[in-house]
Amino acid sequence: MDSNDSGRVISGPTNPMVTPLLTDHYQFTMAYAYWKASKHQERAVFDLYFRKNPFGGEYTIFAGLEECVRFISNYKISEDQIHFIKNNLPPSCEVYAIPEGTVVFPKVPLMRIEGPVAVVQLLETPIVNLINYASLVSTNAARHRFVAGKSKTLLEFGLRRAQGPDGGVSASKYCYIGGFDATSNVAAGRLFGIPLRGTHSHAFVSSYMSLGEITEKSLRKKDGSSTCVDFVSLVQKWLNKIKWSDSLCGIFSDTNKSELTAFISYALAFPDNFLALVDTYDVMRSGVPNFCAVALALSDLGYKAVGIRLDSGDLAYLSCESRKFFCSIEKEFELPGFGKMSITASNDLNEETLDALNKQGHEVDAYGIGTYLVTCYAQAALGVVFKLVEINNQPRIKLSEDVSKVSIPCKKRIYRLYGKETYPLVDLITGENEPPPKVGQRILCRHPFQESKRAYVVPQHVEELQRCYCAGSSDKKRETLPPLKDIRERCIKQLEQMRPDHMRRLNPTPYKVSVSAKLYDYIHFLWLNEAPVGELQ
Amino acid sequence: MDSNDSGRVISGPTNPMVTPLLTDHYQFTMAYAYWKASKHQERAVFDLYFRKNPFGGEYTIFAGLEECVRFISNYKISEDQIHFIKNNLPPSCEVYAIPEGTVVFPKVPLMRIEGPVAVVQLLETPIVNLINYASLVSTNAARHRFVAGKSKTLLEFGLRRAQGPDGGVSASKYCYIGGFDATSNVAAGRLFGIPLRGTHSHAFVSSYMSLGEITEKSLRKKDGSSTCVDFVSLVQKWLNKIKWSDSLCGIFSDTNKSELTAFISYALAFPDNFLALVDTYDVMRSGVPNFCAVALALSDLGYKAVGIRLDSGDLAYLSCESRKFFCSIEKEFELPGFGKMSITASNDLNEETLDALNKQGHEVDAYGIGTYLVTCYAQAALGVVFKLVEINNQPRIKLSEDVSKVSIPCKKRIYRLYGKETYPLVDLITGENEPPPKVGQRILCRHPFQESKRAYVVPQHVEELQRCYCAGSSDKKRETLPPLKDIRERCIKQLEQMRPDHMRRLNPTPYKVSVSAKLYDYIHFLWLNEAPVGELQ
Repeated sequence: MDSNDSGRVISGPTNPMVTPLLTDHYQFTMAYAYWKASKHQERAVFDLYFRKNPFGGEYTIFAGLEECVRFISNYKISEDQIHFIKNNLPPSCEVYAIPEGTVVFPKVPLMRIEGPVAVVQLLETPIVNLINYASLVSTNAARHRFVAGKSKTLLEFGLRRAQGPDGGVSASKYCYIGGFDATSNVAAGRLFGIPLRGTHSHAFVSSYMSLGEITEKSLRKKDGSSTCVDFVSLVQKWLNKIKWSDSLCGIFSDTNKSELTAFISYALAFPDNFLALVDTYDVMRSGVPNFCAVALALSDLGYKAVGIRLDSGDLAYLSCESRKFFCSIEKEFELPGFGKMSITASNDLNEETLDALNKQGHEVDAYGIGTYLVTCYAQAALGVVFKLVEINNQPRIKLSEDVSKVSIPCKKRIYRLYGKETYPLVDLITGENEPPPKVGQRILCRHPFQESKRAYVVPQHVEELQRCYCAGSSDKKRETLPPLKDIRERCIKQLEQMRPDHMRRLNPTPYKVSVSAKLYDYIHFLWLNEAPVGELQ
Repeated sequence: MDSNDSGRVISGPTNPMVTPLLTDHYQFTMAYAYWKASKHQERAVFDLYFRKNPFGGEYTIFAGLEECVRFISNYKISEDQIHFIKNNLPPSCEVYAIPEGTVVFPKVPLMRIEGPVAVVQLLETPIVNLINYASLVSTNAARHRFVAGKSKTLLEFGLRRAQGPDGGVSASKYCYIGGFDATSNVAAGRLFGIPLRGTHSHAFVSSYMSLGEITEKSLRKKDGSSTCVDFVSLVQKWLNKIKWSDSLCGIFSDTNKSELTAFISYALAFPDNFLALVDTYDVMRSGVPNFCAVALALSDLGYKAVGIRLDSGDLAYLSCESRKFFCSIEKEFELPGFGKMSITASNDLNEETLDALNKQGHEVDAYGIGTYLVTCYAQAALGVVFKLVEINNQPRIKLSEDVSKVSIPCKKRIYRLYGKETYPLVDLITGENEPPPKVGQRILCRHPFQESKRAYVVPQHVEELQRCYCAGSSDKKRETLPPLKDIRERCIKQLEQMRPDHMRRLNPTPYKVSVSAKLYDYIHFLWLNEAPVGELQ
């Protein structure tokens, strides 16, 4: 795996926390036991999958693959890291996986890793760790996008609520994949090229006391033609004009001076990117009028203000009132476009609050979402598992009294079958050497464990889902890792392609995952033979 | 801050993800705006605190301080990292904080950071990030310990469910602080010296097929006096003996051969640490008998098996049945101590399931807890905030229509007042220069915002909570950072010291946090003066 046709695998941002030691202790004890038993070189096949979609939904976005491929490609254990494994482990694993950003479903193997059993066993914990949160938070982001709608701008603001630094960086990366537009996390912006967004905090506003603090009051016009020597007075003039204007008269009296000072100061620093947090004191009686006065003064000098951010209170009501205020100013002072000033909302938002905003009617253009997004508050873990399905070419099945925990044995292939209306109809799992399903063919799709659940499907299009990402010692062609933007686009496209009833928030229809007739028979043959005598399965 | 009397601050394990860029974008825009306004050197004071205890409880463990001190002490921004800040920032912040591992309560400033406003503002996001999850997961660990009881061994098994690699490493560290005994996470074990625990997985069991796979069958006696040439036959002999023994006859017939092979193989690798996962097939009809046969064979050679792990099914029932089985063997084969074989349980455990186990009665000695612990499933975030309380020696207050969001202004001191029975009675916040409360003195403690809530307290002991952790350019003596073990011991001691009604799981009594009469008056004076005209607060 050292030779590599994709530069992105070896170089590029690697999380320095992801070392071979980032694994459960029992992986090392097992590796040692395998070695003691001369069993460590036996070729094993493990599948990675999950059992239940998160958030009460019927889908999941697969994410974290690139980190896994990178981790496996660079896997080394040095002498100083570990005593009982003296040499580097053979980088001889083959990795097959569904492309990152794909919409995936329970029971479908997301990754299959083949290699010496002791080595693959060591990979279990880090691989599960890397996929579990990545896929969970991508899915969460996609769900927020679904409720917010395509036209809104979604900003990930979760860094301070994430599970430590890396939780924050992962959150930013995978929310972007799931359809967010930008992040506040500078480290993630730098590592992954995700667009950055952010303005200022309440502390910035309250750090100012009075207009006298602004000593450098001049601002050059955007076209450079001249300089306004007293921007502060220009703002005050506008504030007075608004206050006594026909349509706005009486809405507010004196605005907060700390806030006005902070806004002017911020505008002087960023005349091209003036976005103000308007709820430190009172949105309609101080924040919005102060913002408008500064925006109008900027407009005099040829600059276009960006908009406001609301971080508390009744966001639906305040956004509508702010919009009305902007529109009145557009009309009163004949400033086309002023009414379309961007409104960002950002107070403890989640799927439910976005949905409630939609129902009430609002004028929000962009959402900044943090806590509920990055912590996956609604469901803090996805149960990704990594199960042995074959060793030494012998299929292995994990039985359980709970039928949902029985694993599907053997090396397998996964196909997505599409119907007439271009929607995916069903995922079909077959044995590795079965002939692939063909377009136009009548194919029996069976529930892996329930005898009675079966259906014939005639696909209009067939897509094999797993591809080779690490070729090990084989000469298989390996997939290159796409840039983050492409993964994000794949994800957005995949979500659009799904039949709407699978995607709706309330009572979505489960998407079907099936096995071929041949694989079904084989599973049940093994089941009977593996169950210990006297065990009722 | 480069000179440092505590070696642990500068060297030692630092999370490589924690760089100055790990911050929200708006921190940089604000820093720039402060600089543009020539305001960046103004001395600001920020408090870090939270508003509500997590998990429906009435306490929180403070954690993450060491990482913060380390981060601040090493804060540098290089040219390649950022364009508009050309030189390293002055390492001139003073940090005051409550010691890590302390039981803390809402509204109490956990940390106070003083320094140039632009610099301290840059610290906001990483500091909140480092404290938020650390304190949340420590508290979660402490709550699990409370339900499990002192005598049980608690193992953190959460790595694969954490928010990415660093989430996993942080989880292991802070669960240890909160009272866990060990982790499965090898990286955390190496970084922090936390004891490691772990045996093998279901995959290890199902990777074996038959006894024929064991080629090296010999095992030397523990005392080295001789070697048993066929350990496999010895185990089989014991399995047969158990099967037909008087007290166990009929409990099981043939046990699963994969499992028996895996157990023997594992015992040959770790004869001194044989702990077997017994639920791959059937606990009572295969796993436990197989385990006992291997343990008895080991015992013949002078080794003492450790015990079993249960990872599915009815843990209360299965632990009791396993215990009975062990006791029967102890009696039947006259092996003192065999009945006390350790039983570990580890299937989706959380506070509720531990509580349910206690109510049912069980024989579990150790718990392995993962998902619910590290993801803080019951509440995935702690709302830690970082608020400006003073700038240029002027107090700042953040008002809000929601009174719980009003900040307590000024530089402050925090005292814990203890009563006769050595329980802490109340935390008292005073202005920085007020005389400290004295033992035996009658002290008026007031709710910071509610006029009517007040009480006199006569403390038997007074403890000032905040200490200096970074001295900045001052010559204050700085606290050294204690080793992790000491933090853990502090936490355990602190929890034991609390009045039991604050700690109980159902309807705990809130612990009181108050302000001095003087600070109360000052807060309300500022409140009246800060509120904008026309605003109802």
